This record gives sequence, structure tokens and C-alpha cells, in this order.
Amino acid sequence: MSERISGIFTPNITPVDASGRMDEDKLCGYVDWLIDRGVDGLYPNGSTGEFVRFTAAERRRIAQVVIEQAAGRVPVMAGAAEANARETIEACEAYGAMGARAVAIVAPYYYRLSSEGVYAYFREIADNVSVDVTLYNIPLFASPIDVSTVIRLASDCPRIVGIKDSSGDLPNMMRMISAIRPMRDDFSFLTGWDASLVPMLIVGCDGGTNATSGVVPELTRAIHRSVQAGNIDDAMKMQYQLLPLFDALIGLGEFPEGFRAGARSRGWDLGPGRVPITPAQRESIRSTQRQIDALVNDAPWIGPDQTMSPETIEGIVGRVLRQLGS
Amino acid sequence: MSERISGIFTPNITPVDASGRMDEDKLCGYVDWLIDRGVDGLYPNGSTGEFVRFTAAERRRIAQVVIEQAAGRVPVMAGAAEANARETIEACEAYGAMGARAVAIVAPYYYRLSSEGVYAYFREIADNVSVDVTLYNIPLFASPIDVSTVIRLASDCPRIVGIKDSSGDLPNMMRMISAIRPMRDDFSFLTGWDASLVPMLIVGCDGGTNATSGVVPELTRAIHRSVQAGNIDDAMKMQYQLLPLFDALIGLGEFPEGFRAGARSRGWDLGPGRVPITPAQRESIRSTQRQIDALVNDAPWIGPDQTMSPETIEGIVGRVLRQLGS
Amino acid sequence: MSERISGIFTPNITPVDASGRMDEDKLCGYVDWLIDRGVDGLYPNGSTGEFVRFTAAERRRIAQVVIEQAAGRVPVMAGAAEANARETIEACEAYGAMGARAVAIVAPYYYRLSSEGVYAYFREIADNVSVDVTLYNIPLFASPIDVSTVIRLASDCPRIVGIKDSSGDLPNMMRMISAIRPMRDDFSFLTGWDASLVPMLIVGCDGGTNATSGVVPELTRAIHRSVQAGNIDDAMKMQYQLLPLFDALIGLGEFPEGFRAGARSRGWDLGPGRVPITPAQRESIRSTQRQIDALVNDAPWIGPDQTMSPETIEGIVGRVLRQLGS
Amino acid sequence: MSERISGIFTPNITPVDASGRMDEDKLCGYVDWLIDRGVDGLYPNGSTGEFVRFTAAERRRIAQVVIEQAAGRVPVMAGAAEANARETIEACEAYGAMGARAVAIVAPYYYRLSSEGVYAYFREIADNVSVDVTLYNIPLFASPIDVSTVIRLASDCPRIVGIKDSSGDLPNMMRMISAIRPMRDDFSFLTGWDASLVPMLIVGCDGGTNATSGVVPELTRAIHRSVQAGNIDDAMKMQYQLLPLFDALIGLGEFPEGFRAGARSRGWDLGPGRVPITPAQRESIRSTQRQIDALVNDAPWIGPDQTMSPETIEGIVGRVLRQLGS
Repeated sequence: MSERISGIFTPNITPVDASGRMDEDKLCGYVDWLIDRGVDGLYPNGSTGEFVRFTAAERRRIAQVVIEQAAGRVPVMAGAAEANARETIEACEAYGAMGARAVAIVAPYYYRLSSEGVYAYFREIADNVSVDVTLYNIPLFASPIDVSTVIRLASDCPRIVGIKDSSGDLPNMMRMISAIRPMRDDFSFLTGWDASLVPMLIVGCDGGTNATSGVVPELTRAIHRSVQAGNIDDAMKMQYQLLPLFDALIGLGEFPEGFRAGARSRGWDLGPGRVPITPAQRESIRSTQRQIDALVNDAPWIGPDQTMSPETIEGIVGRVLRQLGS
Repeated sequence: MSERISGIFTPNITPVDASGRMDEDKLCGYVDWLIDRGVDGLYPNGSTGEFVRFTAAERRRIAQVVIEQAAGRVPVMAGAAEANARETIEACEAYGAMGARAVAIVAPYYYRLSSEGVYAYFREIADNVSVDVTLYNIPLFASPIDVSTVIRLASDCPRIVGIKDSSGDLPNMMRMISAIRPMRDDFSFLTGWDASLVPMLIVGCDGGTNATSGVVPELTRAIHRSVQAGNIDDAMKMQYQLLPLFDALIGLGEFPEGFRAGARSRGWDLGPGRVPITPAQRESIRSTQRQIDALVNDAPWIGPDQTMSPETIEGIVGRVLRQLGS
Repeated sequence: MSERISGIFTPNITPVDASGRMDEDKLCGYVDWLIDRGVDGLYPNGSTGEFVRFTAAERRRIAQVVIEQAAGRVPVMAGAAEANARETIEACEAYGAMGARAVAIVAPYYYRLSSEGVYAYFREIADNVSVDVTLYNIPLFASPIDVSTVIRLASDCPRIVGIKDSSGDLPNMMRMISAIRPMRDDFSFLTGWDASLVPMLIVGCDGGTNATSGVVPELTRAIHRSVQAGNIDDAMKMQYQLLPLFDALIGLGEFPEGFRAGARSRGWDLGPGRVPITPAQRESIRSTQRQIDALVNDAPWIGPDQTMSPETIEGIVGRVLRQLGS
Repeated sequence: MSERISGIFTPNITPVDASGRMDEDKLCGYVDWLIDRGVDGLYPNGSTGEFVRFTAAERRRIAQVVIEQAAGRVPVMAGAAEANARETIEACEAYGAMGARAVAIVAPYYYRLSSEGVYAYFREIADNVSVDVTLYNIPLFASPIDVSTVIRLASDCPRIVGIKDSSGDLPNMMRMISAIRPMRDDFSFLTGWDASLVPMLIVGCDGGTNATSGVVPELTRAIHRSVQAGNIDDAMKMQYQLLPLFDALIGLGEFPEGFRAGARSRGWDLGPGRVPITPAQRESIRSTQRQIDALVNDAPWIGPDQTMSPETIEGIVGRVLRQLGS
């Protein structure tokens, strides 16, 4: 049995060049940078990667570039959702052959499927692939995969080895963990809701797929390691720093524009998004860039191109303690 | 200036053969049948056509088959939404070249865009195509196109010649009509919510794109013609017959399974849907088929292969009058 | 069996004096004015009457004043919802004894009850009162009374003689009418959603309880009479005038501040509302008053203290036709 | 300055006798039992106490009985929301005079007020009372008090000393804490969402007002004390036991019927609720009682009339570890 998927995976933005094409060189450089700064895995073709805004052929190429560039340094979980179950199964097999640790499959979107329909869809895929599958629940954008359906799939499908949950629903995460962990030691629980990363880890999540890890990978790594080490106080103080950053990035322009702006603050110009924006939106992003720079770079945990040291963590603790006035 | 788009367009189901491929022969036959029974236009690659469950190449072929088979007998409004604005623009131009009367473009889905983002998306498309464009608002599945954005687009983009609204929000339809009609006589208002077809026509809609017209085209045609002729009483009585049929079809299995079942009641086996279903769902559809047959075939408005005669309309009136006990 | 409740009932604002107390003289004068201008009934202690912001004793007095002042000229439907079923039953009996034609009872609010709970609540009341009861469905504010529960109550409780529905859900209204009318000829369907008044009347509603009737009673009366007479075109044109007025009043300050502002445009200063507002809100209302005055008074249907004449209706028709540019 | 309100407050059920009246003897006994089992405070006239289903006079009496019976052993936070601001202010002053530590005021319900309106309401009250006020945010039932409004009120109103938040929104709780704690050391953050009690305490809440504390006060106390002592592992294990109990109670019959059933499992028959239920609902509660008994009494943390000992905690830890299979 494979080891449980754990740690912080980056749902990486897909860099685009001036002509609007995927920028392979930039993508390779960005992957290296993320791995150097300590992310535990990569997750191409996620929501942050704008998978629905690329063509099937582009998605295939994006996964390939990321897997090849990671070259085994960290595992890759490749977003494999395509137009229908048959196409999705083909993408799964392709990504498995390329060396993906697992695929992540979002529930069918556009139409809202019933629980039965969601079950049938994942069951069909799990029964026909030879790569590990993680469920991707993001009820804001796609058909919800409800708690009982997750439990049913975990029980019926050995190929399904985890869930990435971006609902942010903490009690539901606990309900899933308490039902599935006793029967599936290999099943992984990952949260995609950065605003609750620490609480989610405390209730038992194995890690997260967090868009902020594409901007401040040192911070999300330090959070994960702190909870693992039982340093809840440190972890909470870092969570209190992550939250305003997340709030600033999530609401800027059209998603994931804010995370592109965050990457720019770290020196990464990943190009324009794949969705047109109005001049008013462009101006709003431009005028917010300086505040984001400040949020990202003035924080004690990140010097220019430094990884976080124990001293840095103490600095954060002190700063937040003063901030919280306690 | 082109004539305003009007009448009942059928968002046709895409027939699929036993191997899961689009069934071109069946599609051609079905298109003929619909035209023979009086639909005013066809609308391939709509939600009922499961456009998101086909590949880009398949969507292209589906539009082509429908346009060629219609052969000018009725206009075709082709669903042209692709992964992003650039791909969508290419599809628009292709469908225009094929002879589509217009394209219909659903607002970006998966992500929920802001009003600004929705405006930017449609503006980008409208500024770069040479075919007429209709907006497709279906807030249940895609980013909502709010009333003020529709008005803004109607004002700024001459290429945008209509809206197909599936929200069912009657006051919003009135708000759009009262703001846009005075400035754009060529702008068409179509409703996609069959449950309110008559009220929508009464407040000023030019027609509808109604899934039920793929099952009972004679009835939806008679409804449209009755309202046009000012026979509100007749129209309302037919609306009272359409509603339970719509209710029965919309909720059966995964959408649009119910409408496939409805087509079966008319003799059209359009094959399985593109989404896997569980044995329990399959059984539920099978066991409901007889009720749907009854709803579709026992109704006085449809004899086997007959179009609706004036006598039939009177029969309906009488039956409903008795039913309503008034 | 009593005659079916029909026509336009005014859910009247409760006038308040400078000290914040219910202003009985003002209320009596306002009731007279409404009756003179042609409303078909009165509905004290509705949502527009801010029933929840008055004490139980005040509500009792409000109903009494309205019933006595109406003095049989028009029927009164008195809002009778109290803290629990027992208190509500007592209020029902009191209003029946005062001469109310019926009581209107909103579903339990604050807690969202299940369908079973909603049924149990109305059943308990209907089984223990000697006055006619109408259900009041307003899912925005209170537990929804779903279609099947209304049908179940209509079937089980002869005391329940109607529903006032403020959901604005037109297909649901049709579902209720088609199920209940055949078995209960005495059952009345009233709409509380002014934005859809004409369409609701066309699908079969007997009337409405409309807040705008407290501002432009002549217009809502003319709408009702036009539909009754089969003049759908006239009715729709008036509906197109009612909608922007409704839109302007519903969203101003805290509900029902906008309707107070509307009454002021007719010369009725009904005092401040029962809920505190900020200076910013007060200023917003003040600065909007002139626009509301214009919407209310410049309309052709209302001269100062005139009821609407046939000439006026023609004037409206002409104006709207020009407006709509058709 | 008063000490910050902290610990677990019980929003106690209001006992009712066979005739439907508030049962004062039972209430006194239940208050004693709760205090004996370690609750940190009482909260009469909360949602669990069905405050809206009692009359104003009954609510006054309920608060008085609880305050007198507590007799200073634990602080009492009295729900004081009445029909409008004036009545609420009077109730606040009355409860302050009776000796309440603070009052809790739910945002206006039925109507959904704007943020401005919510601010104006609480500001009006805070400026006119001489007792400490806590805000009660329960967006499921009442107008939401959004984060920026809470911050604005905390900043403008020294009388407002805390918020009881039943939204369960953890990031919002963090947003409030990080903004308010630096400026208001006396401001208390309490959570009313038992399903997230431990995570809420970890992010910085001072305590909770938790309906489950009326059933298993020993467990909620042990949870609070464990987090205070930094024993996060113990706390989480107890949270994993609290969750299925909460799930079982929250959804049974009409709220708060499930919590009555829970109290019955502890030997407290608090009488029927204040809302009628159908025979089917009564049967469902009856048939579930045994499962609730098992959930409540078979748990290692509660022997008959025992408080939780350190041994018990270890027992829980062991059991949950085995359950979680880790």
C-alpha cells in the first residue's frame, strides 16, 4: 500500500506568455522555486491553475511539464477532470504513465448532480484507472460531494485514496475523518481552504492544497511542520498572518488574479490570466499591488529569497503577540 | 438590420449511439422531426444538449450536422461557449461560416465571475466576431449575467442581439425589456424556463428556448401562437398542461435524462446520456417511463404523429376547464 | 360557504406618532383614504405593518381600530400571528369576534420549521378557531410553507380558506392552483409580490395583498379590474409602471421605510418606522423622496386626489407604448 | 473594568409543565443541576430556550427565576431581545437590576436588516442601557451581524462587551478577534456552534454558549479546561465525541426537541416544546430516544451523576484513539 499523501501541495498558477500561450520556461522555473522553498508536492490543473480555461491538449501538456520538471523531487497530484468520464479516465491513465503520484478529480460541474450521480461518476472512474485518485470537493464551483458519498466511495473504491476539500466546512471534515480513518489508513484528508489551515490540520487533516503556498511556500510549510510538531501556538500565530494575506488575494479581480499578484510580489510575473478583465479591474489590481507587496514582503517570515528560520518563527510569534495585545 | 429572433427554439438533446458516440443519423432524423412538428429554430450545444460533456471537436461537429440538416428551413442558434474567450471566438466564427443565424454564449462557468468580469468576457467576444451573439443567462449553472450587465452589453455591443434567460425571474425579464427595447428594436428576449413560458411571453418575450419543445413541439408552438394571437385563455390552459410535464421531466435522474425519457415517449430513443448513472437511477427512470408516456401521449394535443388542430386546442380548453373546476 | 376572498387588500403601514406610539387618528384617516380610493380590503398587522415590532397588546389594538374604522365597507383580514399556537388561537378568536372577515397567519419565524412542523402548527390553529384562516407564505422572512404542505392543509382543514403568497414563485402558484382549485372552490389565492401582480392574476390568482396598494391604490385596483375584464394589454402596461415604483420603494432604507416614503408622496406622513436608522440612512431616504414623489405623482394614472378614469388608462397605454418603442 | 466573560454558558431549555406553562420548580432544579456539574454561566431566553415562543411577560419571569436561583454562584447572561429597541432597552434595564452579569441581544429577526440597520439597532440599545451587552449573531435565524459591523460596534460602544457567534464561521471569528482584541481587552468572543467548539477555542474564543452543555455539562467543561491547559489532543478527542451527539440532537424533530431528548437521557423531563408537532414527529423522537440515551450515557465521561475525573479523560483518549485507528 502506498504511503498516505500528506503535506502542503501547491495548486500552481499556470504561467502564460504575452501571446496568451502557456509559458513552459516560466512554469519550469516556478516549479523549481516552489520545490526549493519547501512545498511537499505540486498540483497542476487545479482551480488556481485555471484548468477549465485551457484546452484538453494544453492541460495534458501542463501536467507533463510539471511532472517532468519535478522529476521525483516532490510528488505530483495532477488535476485530470475532462469533459466526461471516458475522457477523464484517459487523462488519468496518461498522467499515471507520466509518473503522477495521483490524480485529483473535481466533481462534475456546470450541472449540479445528485449524490447518486456524483457517486456513479467517481465509481466509474475509480473502477477503470490504474492510478491513485483523490476526490476534489469544491461546492462553490462544482457539484458537492457530500459526506455520505465520500464515505461510500472510500468504502467501495480502493483506488480512491483521499479527498481534497475546499468547502472549509470543519465539522464535515471531522465527520469524514471519524468515519473513514478506521477503515482506510491510507486515505488522505487535504484541505483547500487556507483560511482554516491550522484548525483543519488540528482536527486531523494530513495536509492541504493551498493557493497561498504558491506565494508564501515558506509560511505554509512552517504552519504544517508546527502542527506536526505539536506547536499549536506557533501555528496559530502564523495562521493569523496567513488569513489577511489570503483575504487580500482571494477577492482581487477575478480568481486567481490575486494569487498572480501575490506571485509578482515574490518576483514571479506569471503573465495575464486567461479571462478578459475590464480596464477598471486592471487598475484595481495595479493599485492594490503595493499593499500586497507589503503583506508578502514586510512579513518577518520572508526575507528576499530566504527560507524561514527558527528565529523568524520566533519573530512572528512576538509580532503577533504584540498585535493581539495579549 | 436582421429581423429579431423569435419563436420557439429547441435546445435539442444530442443523440448518442451504443458506443457512446454522437449519433449523426439519429440527430438528422430528430432535427427533421422537430422541424416537421413546427419548431421555429434549433439550438444545438445548449444545456439540454450536454455541451460540456462533449469535446470541443464533438461540439463543432454537432453544430455542423444540425445546421446542414436544417438547411435553412429554420434558423439555427448554435451554442458556442468554449474553454476561453479566444476559443469561443473561433467557434463563433466557424458557426457563422457554417450558416448559423446566431451563436448563444453561456456566461463563464465553474468560477463565479463578478459583473465586471462577465461584462469583459462578452465584450471581448462581441468585439471580435462577425456573427450575431445571444447571451445565455443560467445562474443555476454559470456566472449570473445580472440585469445591469445585460443593459450595459446591449448598449455597447451591436453584435449582441438577444438574451436567452433561464433564470425564470419574471420581474428581471421586465426590467430588461423596459430598459433595452426602447434603444434596441432588434434585441430579442427569449425565456428558457418552460414553467413560466406563457407569463414570459405575455410580459413581452419574443420566444423561448425550451427543452420541452424537444418532446412536445406541437404544444410549445401552439402556446407561442396563442399568445401572439392574443388568446391568453387558451395559452394559459396549455401552460397548465405543460407544467406537470416539465416538472416530471426536469427532476428525473440527472438532467437531461428526463427529457430523453420524454423523447422516448414520442418514439425517439436518443441513447444514453453522457454521464454515468447508478443502477438505482436507471431503475427509477425505467419505472417512471410509463407515467411519462401517459403525460405525453394521453394528452389531447398530440395524436400519434399529428400536429395540433384547432379542434385539439378546444379539447384542451374543455379538459382544463373541467379540471380547474371553473 | 363564504364567498372566496378576492381583490386587492392593503397590508397597511401602521402610523406612529412623534413619541413612537401607534397613531390611531392617523390610522383611521388612512383607512378611509384607502377605502375611498378603491382597495378591496385591509390587512393590518402584515409585514408592511411591522407586526413583529409592536407588542401583543398593540397588535390587538391595531386590528381593532382598522376593523372598526372599516365598519363593513370592505372586509378586513387581520394578521394574527403571536408567540405560539395558543396565543395565536386567542388572537384569531378575538379578531373574529371583532368582525374580521378572516385572519392571516404567517408561518413560524426565527426557527426554520420542517414541513411537518409547519403543517402541525397550522393544523393546530385551524382545528381550534371559529374564524376563517389564510396562510401567509413569505419564505424570505419565515419558515416556508411548501406547495405540498399547502395542498395537505387545504385538503384537511376547511377553516383554511386561502393563501397569501409572497414568494413570487409563479410556477409554484400554478402548482397550488391546479391541485387545490378542483377540490376547494372557496379557496383563495392571493399574491403578495407586486412585481408579478399581473402574471399572478393571469395564472389564476384571486387578488393580492400588495404594499404598493397603500401608495397607489388606484393603480393596483385598475390592474385587478383590467385582468378581470380580460384587458391583458392594459394590465401589462400598468404592471410596467408599477414595477419601477415597487423597485424604488422596496429597497429604500429598512423595509418598510420606502413605502412610508411612498405614502408621504401622497400626502400621508405616517411617522417614523419602528426600527432605529442611522443618519446616513435618514439622509438617503430624504434625498430619494423627490424621485419617489415624481414616480408617484407624475404618473398619468393619479391626479391629485383623483381616481383613475378610462381616459387615464388610455393615457398610460399611450405613454408606455411610446416608452417601449413598439 | 469588568472581567472578560468566559467559559461555557448553558443556553438552557425552558421547562414546561403539562398545561404548557413555564415550570418554575423544574427550572430551579435544572439550574442547580447544571451549576453542580460545572457550567460557568447560564443563558436564559436563548434560542434553545425558545424565547420567541414565550410572551414578553413569560420571558421576564424566566430570566428572574434563573438569576435568583443562580444566586451569584455563576453569572447569568440574559437574552433580552423584545419586539423593538424601546422594549428591548426596558428588558435590559430590568435584567441588569435583577443582577444579570450581561444581556445577550439577538439581531432583529423576521426582516433582514442591512448592516447599517443592524448597527443602528445595537447602537441605540448600547447608548441607553446601564448593563453590559453581548451581541448575538445567528445568521440562520436573524439578520446577520457582519464582521465589519461587529468591529464598528466594538469600537463605538463601550457597553458592548462581547459577541456570541452561532454562525460557525471560523475565519470570521479570527477576523473579529484580530481586529477587536488589540483595542478592547474586555471584549469576549463566545461561540455557539458546538460542532466547532475546540477549534473556536484554539483560535482564541473565550468560551461558548453551547446547547450541548445542557445535556453533557461535564464534557463541555472538560473541553474548555483542556484547551485552557493547552491539552489540545485531549480536547480534540472530546470534540470527536461531542460532534456525533450534537449531530443527533440538532436535527431531531423541531429545534430544540433534540436537546429536550438529550436532557431526558440525563433524567430531566423538561416537558413538551412550545411548538405543535405531528404524531409522526412524536414517534420519530420516541424511537430515537434509546440511541440518544446510548450516546449520552454509555460514553465514558459520564457515569450516573459523576463529574469527569482525570481517569475518565484517559478513558476517552484511549477509546477515541482506538476508534480513529491511529
